Amino acid sequence: MTPRNVRTATFDFLRARGMTTIFGNPGSTELPMLQQFPSDFTYVLGLQEATVVGMADGYAQASGRPTFVNLHTAPGVGNAMGAIFNAQANKAPLVITAGNQTRSLMTLQANLTNRDATRMPHPLVKWSYEPPRAEDVPHAIARATHLATLPPRGPVFVSIPMDDWAAEVDEPAAEHQLSRVVSGAAAAPVGELAQALAGAANPVMVAGPDVDAGGAWGAAVALAEQAALPVWATPAPGGGRIGFPEGHPHFRGVLPPAIGPASETLAGHDLILVVGSSVFPYYPNIPGPLLPEGARLVVITSDPDEAARAPMGDALVADVRLTLEALIEALPSSNGRTPPQPLDPPFEVELTDPMNASTAMRALGEVFPENGIVVLEAPSATLALRNQLRLSKPGSYYFGAGGGLGFGLSAAVGVQMAQPDRPTVCVVGEGSAQYAIQALWSAAAYDVPLTVLVLRNEEYAILKWFSMLENVEAAPGLDLPKLDVSGVAEAWRIATS
Amino acid sequence: MTPRNVRTATFDFLRARGMTTIFGNPGSTELPMLQQFPSDFTYVLGLQEATVVGMADGYAQASGRPTFVNLHTAPGVGNAMGAIFNAQANKAPLVITAGNQTRSLMTLQANLTNRDATRMPHPLVKWSYEPPRAEDVPHAIARATHLATLPPRGPVFVSIPMDDWAAEVDEPAAEHQLSRVVSGAAAAPVGELAQALAGAANPVMVAGPDVDAGGAWGAAVALAEQAALPVWATPAPGGGRIGFPEGHPHFRGVLPPAIGPASETLAGHDLILVVGSSVFPYYPNIPGPLLPEGARLVVITSDPDEAARAPMGDALVADVRLTLEALIEALPSSNGRTPPQPLDPPFEVELTDPMNASTAMRALGEVFPENGIVVLEAPSATLALRNQLRLSKPGSYYFGAGGGLGFGLSAAVGVQMAQPDRPTVCVVGEGSAQYAIQALWSAAAYDVPLTVLVLRNEEYAILKWFSMLENVEAAPGLDLPKLDVSGVAEAWRIATS
Amino acid sequence: MTPRNVRTATFDFLRARGMTTIFGNPGSTELPMLQQFPSDFTYVLGLQEATVVGMADGYAQASGRPTFVNLHTAPGVGNAMGAIFNAQANKAPLVITAGNQTRSLMTLQANLTNRDATRMPHPLVKWSYEPPRAEDVPHAIARATHLATLPPRGPVFVSIPMDDWAAEVDEPAAEHQLSRVVSGAAAAPVGELAQALAGAANPVMVAGPDVDAGGAWGAAVALAEQAALPVWATPAPGGGRIGFPEGHPHFRGVLPPAIGPASETLAGHDLILVVGSSVFPYYPNIPGPLLPEGARLVVITSDPDEAARAPMGDALVADVRLTLEALIEALPSSNGRTPPQPLDPPFEVELTDPMNASTAMRALGEVFPENGIVVLEAPSATLALRNQLRLSKPGSYYFGAGGGLGFGLSAAVGVQMAQPDRPTVCVVGEGSAQYAIQALWSAAAYDVPLTVLVLRNEEYAILKWFSMLENVEAAPGLDLPKLDVSGVAEAWRIATS
Amino acid sequence: MTPRNVRTATFDFLRARGMTTIFGNPGSTELPMLQQFPSDFTYVLGLQEATVVGMADGYAQASGRPTFVNLHTAPGVGNAMGAIFNAQANKAPLVITAGNQTRSLMTLQANLTNRDATRMPHPLVKWSYEPPRAEDVPHAIARATHLATLPPRGPVFVSIPMDDWAAEVDEPAAEHQLSRVVSGAAAAPVGELAQALAGAANPVMVAGPDVDAGGAWGAAVALAEQAALPVWATPAPGGGRIGFPEGHPHFRGVLPPAIGPASETLAGHDLILVVGSSVFPYYPNIPGPLLPEGARLVVITSDPDEAARAPMGDALVADVRLTLEALIEALPSSNGRTPPQPLDPPFEVELTDPMNASTAMRALGEVFPENGIVVLEAPSATLALRNQLRLSKPGSYYFGAGGGLGFGLSAAVGVQMAQPDRPTVCVVGEGSAQYAIQALWSAAAYDVPLTVLVLRNEEYAILKWFSMLENVEAAPGLDLPKLDVSGVAEAWRIATS
Repeated sequence: MTPRNVRTATFDFLRARGMTTIFGNPGSTELPMLQQFPSDFTYVLGLQEATVVGMADGYAQASGRPTFVNLHTAPGVGNAMGAIFNAQANKAPLVITAGNQTRSLMTLQANLTNRDATRMPHPLVKWSYEPPRAEDVPHAIARATHLATLPPRGPVFVSIPMDDWAAEVDEPAAEHQLSRVVSGAAAAPVGELAQALAGAANPVMVAGPDVDAGGAWGAAVALAEQAALPVWATPAPGGGRIGFPEGHPHFRGVLPPAIGPASETLAGHDLILVVGSSVFPYYPNIPGPLLPEGARLVVITSDPDEAARAPMGDALVADVRLTLEALIEALPSSNGRTPPQPLDPPFEVELTDPMNASTAMRALGEVFPENGIVVLEAPSATLALRNQLRLSKPGSYYFGAGGGLGFGLSAAVGVQMAQPDRPTVCVVGEGSAQYAIQALWSAAAYDVPLTVLVLRNEEYAILKWFSMLENVEAAPGLDLPKLDVSGVAEAWRIATS
Repeated sequence: MTPRNVRTATFDFLRARGMTTIFGNPGSTELPMLQQFPSDFTYVLGLQEATVVGMADGYAQASGRPTFVNLHTAPGVGNAMGAIFNAQANKAPLVITAGNQTRSLMTLQANLTNRDATRMPHPLVKWSYEPPRAEDVPHAIARATHLATLPPRGPVFVSIPMDDWAAEVDEPAAEHQLSRVVSGAAAAPVGELAQALAGAANPVMVAGPDVDAGGAWGAAVALAEQAALPVWATPAPGGGRIGFPEGHPHFRGVLPPAIGPASETLAGHDLILVVGSSVFPYYPNIPGPLLPEGARLVVITSDPDEAARAPMGDALVADVRLTLEALIEALPSSNGRTPPQPLDPPFEVELTDPMNASTAMRALGEVFPENGIVVLEAPSATLALRNQLRLSKPGSYYFGAGGGLGFGLSAAVGVQMAQPDRPTVCVVGEGSAQYAIQALWSAAAYDVPLTVLVLRNEEYAILKWFSMLENVEAAPGLDLPKLDVSGVAEAWRIATS
Repeated sequence: MTPRNVRTATFDFLRARGMTTIFGNPGSTELPMLQQFPSDFTYVLGLQEATVVGMADGYAQASGRPTFVNLHTAPGVGNAMGAIFNAQANKAPLVITAGNQTRSLMTLQANLTNRDATRMPHPLVKWSYEPPRAEDVPHAIARATHLATLPPRGPVFVSIPMDDWAAEVDEPAAEHQLSRVVSGAAAAPVGELAQALAGAANPVMVAGPDVDAGGAWGAAVALAEQAALPVWATPAPGGGRIGFPEGHPHFRGVLPPAIGPASETLAGHDLILVVGSSVFPYYPNIPGPLLPEGARLVVITSDPDEAARAPMGDALVADVRLTLEALIEALPSSNGRTPPQPLDPPFEVELTDPMNASTAMRALGEVFPENGIVVLEAPSATLALRNQLRLSKPGSYYFGAGGGLGFGLSAAVGVQMAQPDRPTVCVVGEGSAQYAIQALWSAAAYDVPLTVLVLRNEEYAILKWFSMLENVEAAPGLDLPKLDVSGVAEAWRIATS
Repeated sequence: MTPRNVRTATFDFLRARGMTTIFGNPGSTELPMLQQFPSDFTYVLGLQEATVVGMADGYAQASGRPTFVNLHTAPGVGNAMGAIFNAQANKAPLVITAGNQTRSLMTLQANLTNRDATRMPHPLVKWSYEPPRAEDVPHAIARATHLATLPPRGPVFVSIPMDDWAAEVDEPAAEHQLSRVVSGAAAAPVGELAQALAGAANPVMVAGPDVDAGGAWGAAVALAEQAALPVWATPAPGGGRIGFPEGHPHFRGVLPPAIGPASETLAGHDLILVVGSSVFPYYPNIPGPLLPEGARLVVITSDPDEAARAPMGDALVADVRLTLEALIEALPSSNGRTPPQPLDPPFEVELTDPMNASTAMRALGEVFPENGIVVLEAPSATLALRNQLRLSKPGSYYFGAGGGLGFGLSAAVGVQMAQPDRPTVCVVGEGSAQYAIQALWSAAAYDVPLTVLVLRNEEYAILKWFSMLENVEAAPGLDLPKLDVSGVAEAWRIATS
């Protein structure tokens, strides 16, 4: 057997893990990795790094697999930082790499030396590392991949000096990559919770994005039905994915994101069971009691940080699906509570000129295919879409939980690539679309059959809404004349209408 | 009700959590917190910050409770950093706080401003925070306490400007502290592991410190007996606590800490079950295969990072005790394997002059009380102690897993305070004792009935041993003439012999 | 007098410093700052944060003044990180701010909380700060402004919770902003250098970007003429600005950026005087001696870090212009050396189809106005432009010294705004243009009379060149089909041809 | 010539720079560096890392040379962090190194791996680095040494994996270490300042520690005499060194450290010239105007950060000595102002029992030798010492500017080693002495003829004083019974009386 080098050993590892779709924007420091690129791998080029990471984020979430990203040294990582922030908020397991100068030129800080390689992405990733020797690159990538996929999932970063790829592999060190990590645990303190749920007079569920990400959609529905729970979606800003079918009879709507209104909405309930969500993604600041009088809150989450920072209630840190299943098993079969009644159908919307968001969303709802997917980044139309579409299948909805614009259009390309059999619609505001407009080119270049619906209003409508809320007058920079997304798309050979 | 201020609200929280023993070394920036110190609290003064954190580390581990630490702004935190490193390695849940300048003087960086308050301890703690307002201090301390106690446990840090303590509390913000966090999970992937264990020809267990820390000692013994497993202790450098009774017939000894020897020691086993340990705390570098030919390794750990960085094998990230109990339940009752035979009793040691470590440890063993505790920091005598004492009760052994000297003497004071009914012996080398010699004063000042056994040899014996191993000759700084620990202890009114 | 609030006090400070052109992309957390935006200020909106900072970078460099930047909390700062990296490499004095959540919601980490506000930009800025009280915001911005303008100049960062702007000002704290900082020093160790220069047989000058940035262009020409020095430009990757008239008879060309070739180029010189440059911005790795046989190197720089990391020679850390002037004064009036002869005029270029870079640059040179400015980001055409244009006026050339793409198009908009009377041409590659394509919109929206010359080749030509150099074959992601910058520009109402 | 390895090349560099006295506390990861320790070097062992860095700090300041420090991996660096904080505040040029694991074991994080090697000391040092290859260690140490000595001076850090020392040197890379860095500048904006000084009715000077550190003592005296300036010492907390002879007729005393009192003290002056100090090291918070009515303040400092954060006045960032000399030259020879009259001699102190601080200091003053040096860390006796001793020779006074206790006793050992011909007295409080009590051992072991004067009071007197100031009652931890420094010293064979 010919000895492997770092490059071939790394591709062997990626192949073994099914990580054969790589998203990137290379520079000279990354070329040695791309040398003789294996034909069973796909390299998806983005024109700007924010779109590279955004596409990978969508792909990782929609495929459920860790995804390899290839960025250019310091400035390339820099361009991607906003998108990495989103990936962290979205808990997307990205293995992000970037090149660095040749090791021998780093100490004199030759051009393109990434002098703070590991410190720059550090606040946003679970692990940030530059291996001390070329031979350790495969082990570092393996360790990074494990960390990315352990709960809470999230991005990791490895910096790789450009001369490392050609180094002969230290086979014992490369073997360090062989471990497999399974997360889970045995027997749980769910008994007390089951009792509380059985004994509650008027309990309610709030479902968050990790229900979908954790494969717990079925368990959430089963629990809601068995325990006669009305179900709210967690407030939209943190609702990166939908955790409960919005057309289900038990579904009540999306919880308001501010402290006072959320608490008012939940008034009357004595037990609030939050599942797979932070408590809560509040914004903006409308004060009020954290909980309705007399209510107790319990959150089930796999993220210790979400648990620790919850301002009220009790938390159970555990796998969401396993815990819901155990809870169902521990519940008595009947509880004497009346199941909730279905909501009214979406309200009829009046036709306006120009068309308002609800009208547009109603039109979308009328043609939306059964197995369709929505990727949403239209801040002033979020609730209109949720109300009109009432998405009711798992894996149908992706929204940037971190609030960083530029996620939507990029991620939609990645989602559609990961789910080629499900028609995907990206609903994006005209202003939002600009943050990652370059993703359109990747969609065209790789023939991704994505539909993009751009809502136009020649302004940052959400900021005008906030201006009213915050009593801000005469703020500059809120109007967007002269935008023509259609024209840009046509320039990149995308069919428009 | 009179309105509470930040200070009284914080003490209310600490009281509610049973955190009434505080370790500290105050400066002027901490005085406002200590104002009218409540009489139901105990303040344990250490003369240097390394001993303050060391004592708290021992106390937290031995009491099983989060422990509040009160340090002086930047330089005080600085002095403690080595001890915080140890606390992290020991997974000790410390809520470390330090004062900072008055908020109004911080931007002009008045003297004693901790200008990088949160960045300095950041690499060593799970959370590092300075609240944006005085009113948020109680919430921040509550959040910090939760984080410290979630697995893997460890220190957290909160910086508190000195004028914050007198601020009137924002009661809704203070209520943010009311949540309770429980960790655990439901149903587990232990079935496959149980089958592997049942079917193995010659399985073995390696027990680590989290067995003791996680209350899993009984489960570990039950599993070893039911599955006829011989049991090794994880290599000594990472064996901060003992995970299996060393006088038990199944116990085989302490695994060597280097790659080659560890693998040789485990030769012949086909399944290696590591419990509550990293895989492995190797040191120094003696190459060799990671595993014996034909062996499979599975590690059960509650620390995702330990799982991710393991160089070989499979990992199950879960609560150690719950997983062992589930594993026992899932195992068939018989397996046809012969249980291991007890080890020979500790070897007779020859009398030497000066006395060698084994002789000293044998003498200690002869008088060691049944419910005694050892806190050990005598690098060249570690194995002698383990072999001669064969400690066999939970919570009987504390060792600095991070390898930072100064832990031993400090932690011993804390351990004895946390376990007043169990006689504690600190076995410490003459050189090690110097790193935290000030802890002797605290022991005297607070009448802590600790026994300290100082092993003398007028040198850094472990470094001379390493010098041989690494072929280092003529190194300076390895001799320690003129030390007189006894004299120092007497100066602080400690009885010596 | 009505009491000022933080917002009005901040605008007072900015007005006093002439910082009335603000570049930004606001979100809801920044609206309170923009409330009642003063009519004597200009707000320049960029559609994506990379273009916001890029425009400000160009503006700051070309105006010579610190420039205020207004970004959105975490994700906005994230998107800008690549451009901040460039600004650091360009030594552009940017006062970058971003909003944060309301202080009362930060500890529970409400949506849009920038939880690592100061740590994210830290590796790239001279100071990263979030004031401990609302009242300290004006002082913090003043301190930030001073730091940004002290040598070496560079970006700074201040995070501002959104409720701070309305706080009433603490007038004593606001007065903290009144100090003025002058940099410079008295009498210098230039005597020894003057002697060495006078006595050298064949000295040479290498001029770097800080000659232009430091206003030392005239001094550099005078020294070269008085001491009969041939002059090279520092290697192109670090040549963010031109430090010597390239049409001057003493000018020799641009030094190659790799170790071996640079040293060969300087062979024969016994004294190499580097002015206002790092030593050197090497890339890629072509080994060789650092200096020609027998040569001594001395660098004059105002950047201690550039001095400390120089791999050879002596360094004088001081203001570049003052030092050159002192050197001229200390030099004898004659030296017996023959002044260098002018270079040949730019070579005639052959017409090719498609047109090559030299042809395009020759055509540009023929119509280039006397007081024109070039902003360049066309990696494979850099040397062609330098050779054909031979720019010979101060402040005529801007290039991203950090190598991060996206600088060119954005900075060109800012440069043209700062220098409205000097026609500016942005020469940009088709691939480079995509990294900040949104800057075209700002140019159109603010009627900036910029000329953009896009060089097209449907590939990343520089990467294909590097692939040859590094023997990399079959790398993916180097081709750029379907790009149509013209079409995109037209969609944004920009005249194209 | 036999090829050099990293170890021998490093010692060659240190020898060439005169850095042959090394302070350290080694562990196994540092042994490879100490192998065959050269006989022309001295290794000074400290028993705990805080004392190692403290001694080196004193040595570097008193010798004026960069000083090499050798610490043990993570926990060793951790123990030293408080002392590194002090060294930063003291602007002591320390080249601090620590070992790390063997490179091949770092990625699996074997025991003693310093996993955040560069991030831990980062907030306190000017550069924190781990070379990417063994061959780069000598270059990294050279670069670190340059950075440490450039203004503002301060500590730097290099992490060195233990197997690097034996690596064969890459001679071109090793040659990277040959550059020499000189700081200074040419011609200065002092004219305006000279005019202001000449025209002022009643100017005053405030002299700070960098006057002494920068060799500007003579220039400060000459300027004060020529311009008839009364002179105050900068407030004691930041007065790490004395910048003006305190027995000189122009000397007025030590400025109070709080805003209001400092301003009152300077009332009546129209121009306040601060030299070599921050403006000002305030503590505690006593509000008031920053400047007296009608006064202008100008500070001359070589530290850009001190300049930028000054809350009022103008700053001139430049070499202190060169600027004072230029100022003297630019001043007219006469100014019509009356020179200040000498202070009264130190007040007679009443004898008290127990003896108070002034009595003790008067007794010290009576026997204090002409060329004596004081190292002071007795917080409640600082002003008594300054007033009674009125030190009047350069390099006679060292005080920890950062306020971190433990500096005094350690630094005194280093100062006496660096200045063997000047009798050194360490004046230290009984409580302060405990923070680095281990330094006594080093003094004994290396026969350092240091005199230590311990002021005893069985309490933290300064904290009791602050308690009164801050109206804090019933604070615990302020009493120090059972201390016996004498006994401890005797145990270490130090003569006591």
